Amino acid sequence: MAMEAQSDPLGLTFSALADPTRRAILARLAVGDADVSELMKPFGLSQPTISKHLKVLERAGLITQGRDAQRRPRKLVAAPLKDVAEWAEPYRRFWEIRLDRLDGYLKKTGAKEKKRARKT
Amino acid sequence: MAMEAQSDPLGLTFSALADPTRRAILARLAVGDADVSELMKPFGLSQPTISKHLKVLERAGLITQGRDAQRRPRKLVAAPLKDVAEWAEPYRRFWEIRLDRLDGYLKKTGAKEKKRARKT
Repeated sequence: MAMEAQSDPLGLTFSALADPTRRAILARLAVGDADVSELMKPFGLSQPTISKHLKVLERAGLITQGRDAQRRPRKLVAAPLKDVAEWAEPYRRFWEIRLDRLDGYLKKTGAKEKKRARKT
Repeated sequence: MAMEAQSDPLGLTFSALADPTRRAILARLAVGDADVSELMKPFGLSQPTISKHLKVLERAGLITQGRDAQRRPRKLVAAPLKDVAEWAEPYRRFWEIRLDRLDGYLKKTGAKEKKRARKT
């Protein structure tokens, strides 16, 4: 896994995002920094479980740990998410082509329906 | 894992994308459909290894299997990648804020450098 981290940072990001709780933690941190105890309550999870998820997110570079007196607030780091968006971008033409085709199909069927309606 | 598939399709997508070989297979299929033997050569992988990766991609809905006489070409399905892009989109403001700040910093430093250059 440590090997994986060095050779495939994008893979490490995707792996961290594969868990719904970790994605929910990121969404929570997008609203504002939070420490372990602040994350425990809304998620209804134990301290070790939250800590385990935070470790995975930290290793993927998706969060950092701040220091604020006694608190250790976690902060969202968006850079790896930019890499995810940029990775997905070249595939856009594939999902847009599909929508274009559907749109074309619906227009064609719609035209036919109108024609049929006019005839009857 | 099957449970995971039903309850968290996005997680299944991220999990499939966590492997660099699977991402490379998707990039290859973006160029055109290919069957197992056509994928074996460029990747230098055995038939069982390729088949295993294809199974993961198929379960995540990222590819489909066509039928063309004796061939079973695999085709890219981009819909789950659209979901990935849409999931990442709300985080855009975080990475753009950071770039704005960097830009502002560079402009400020640049202005100072010019001032200093004028003085000397």
